[in-house]
Amino acid sequence: MAVYTEVDDEELEAFVASYDIGTLVSAKGIAEGVENSNYLIHTTRGPWILTLYEKRVAKADLPFFMNLMEHCAARGIDCPLPIHDRDGQVIREIAGRPAVIVSFLQGMSPRRVALEHCAPLGMALAKLHVAVSDFTMSRENALSVEGWRKLVAGARPRADEVQPGLGDEIARELDFLELRWPKHLAAGVIHADLFPNNVFFLGDRLSGLIDFYFACNDFLAYDVAICLNAWCFESDRSFNATKAMRLVGGYRQIRALSAPEIDALPLLARGAAFRFLLTRLYDWQHTPTGALVKPLDPIEYLRKLRFHRSVESAAAYGI
Amino acid sequence: MAVYTEVDDEELEAFVASYDIGTLVSAKGIAEGVENSNYLIHTTRGPWILTLYEKRVAKADLPFFMNLMEHCAARGIDCPLPIHDRDGQVIREIAGRPAVIVSFLQGMSPRRVALEHCAPLGMALAKLHVAVSDFTMSRENALSVEGWRKLVAGARPRADEVQPGLGDEIARELDFLELRWPKHLAAGVIHADLFPNNVFFLGDRLSGLIDFYFACNDFLAYDVAICLNAWCFESDRSFNATKAMRLVGGYRQIRALSAPEIDALPLLARGAAFRFLLTRLYDWQHTPTGALVKPLDPIEYLRKLRFHRSVESAAAYGI
Repeated sequence: MAVYTEVDDEELEAFVASYDIGTLVSAKGIAEGVENSNYLIHTTRGPWILTLYEKRVAKADLPFFMNLMEHCAARGIDCPLPIHDRDGQVIREIAGRPAVIVSFLQGMSPRRVALEHCAPLGMALAKLHVAVSDFTMSRENALSVEGWRKLVAGARPRADEVQPGLGDEIARELDFLELRWPKHLAAGVIHADLFPNNVFFLGDRLSGLIDFYFACNDFLAYDVAICLNAWCFESDRSFNATKAMRLVGGYRQIRALSAPEIDALPLLARGAAFRFLLTRLYDWQHTPTGALVKPLDPIEYLRKLRFHRSVESAAAYGI
Repeated sequence: MAVYTEVDDEELEAFVASYDIGTLVSAKGIAEGVENSNYLIHTTRGPWILTLYEKRVAKADLPFFMNLMEHCAARGIDCPLPIHDRDGQVIREIAGRPAVIVSFLQGMSPRRVALEHCAPLGMALAKLHVAVSDFTMSRENALSVEGWRKLVAGARPRADEVQPGLGDEIARELDFLELRWPKHLAAGVIHADLFPNNVFFLGDRLSGLIDFYFACNDFLAYDVAICLNAWCFESDRSFNATKAMRLVGGYRQIRALSAPEIDALPLLARGAAFRFLLTRLYDWQHTPTGALVKPLDPIEYLRKLRFHRSVESAAAYGI
């Protein structure tokens, strides 16, 4: 949850009036997104989302994210559509922050992942990969293998405070992953953060994908690996292979996975778990006491990493 | 801001289905209200507010608050209307908390009080007092003069940590107020917490009053005194007598203030400032480090108290 920046009501009214979306009648700060301030606003023409970008999102990246969402929405992906103001601008400024208004999506994020969510999730992910195949902009994945050595260097000195031996374990893991990381898999723009809180459902129907602010260029199968981590572990930390089978099965209904992609899946899942372990370690060590946002538990991802380390082949994921 | 209780999406769908308000399509935790968890929900029939009551609101008081809002809404006051479920119930339970759904009100709380807000605010307050004149339930004001001695006893030992000498000052103030507090002014149900964040405007038009969870029986003029404190001081702590004149003038357009009420205003305003000073001191001393809600500054109300102490008569408020 996060509303970092308060917006003056008069400034907001004037801001909304510069769009052709009706007159502002309400604005509520919402507990959504940890990187930005989000307001659910109502105008005489219905609900919209106003996002103010706090410093964790680089302003230079905003055109990539906005064009990506516009590209996807135009190809039938249920994602937020950035709204242009009367001058055609998408990225504006309010309360001293870069800001955009996007369309409002119906649906709710599942608090608990049910089996029924997994096939639609896999299908939506594959549709996204297909939809972005002709997207021309690109953005480097700063949180993939090339960026991990720096993250490990930052996390290692205090990692043992989280769990004894963790510092050495992440150093060894880094060496292993750097050596084995694939180089020639199908690549393109990936969402890179498709956790349950970024996916809306209406009943069993997937109604929206949100939060494209980690989207970047990487292996498409790495996005599948991120989802395996985010959707297929139970709260008791056990891996639900049926969920994985449904997720990957849904994906393959829309986009084929090549043999090298399938072979690489355990390694990619291990790498994905490593990436979230490292960033959670960072947040754990850098979140000031008393911050609005509670840091997520790094150990959850250490356990997931160890599970994938134990996996012999993609058969463990029900493939 | 506050969303204390997370609600499971399936439980929420079933909950909403027990009302005749359409099918749930969205739910966002909103940063509104510090005592409760609030969700802005959308159904196929539009937006609604779902409130879950956390422990600071006594469950036994909920029927009073709900009936009061229903009573006021029926008399044309723009306030949330509690919705009855298919069995006629208003107070329900979700996620282990007492919960109600109320109508959604358009409008935004002013972040800065403008002169133009004050007459409509005064008029709305007076309309509220008129509307509740035939309301038959009652609720004691635990935060009025009878409750202050207990609050002072709790706050005094550590009050000097906030400002040297404050402990003695509040003890002397208590003695003074207990001795002089009026006994025979017009009384009825008051809102008792009509701060700008509890009042919605659309432009200069007042569109809603919310947060009735401090409503209680007390002198009607005490409600005016609370508003003088909450609406008429500038951010530099100066008192804006023009705002006070507008506020009281708006009030008197709808309900006459008697001579004893006018005479009592400086004392009532002093008492109202004292009440918020004491509760802020309490929150200041009892909010754990790292809590989601930042305690409000008690000193702001000490300065307001001192201003009212210096006032000779209601003429200082432009009356």
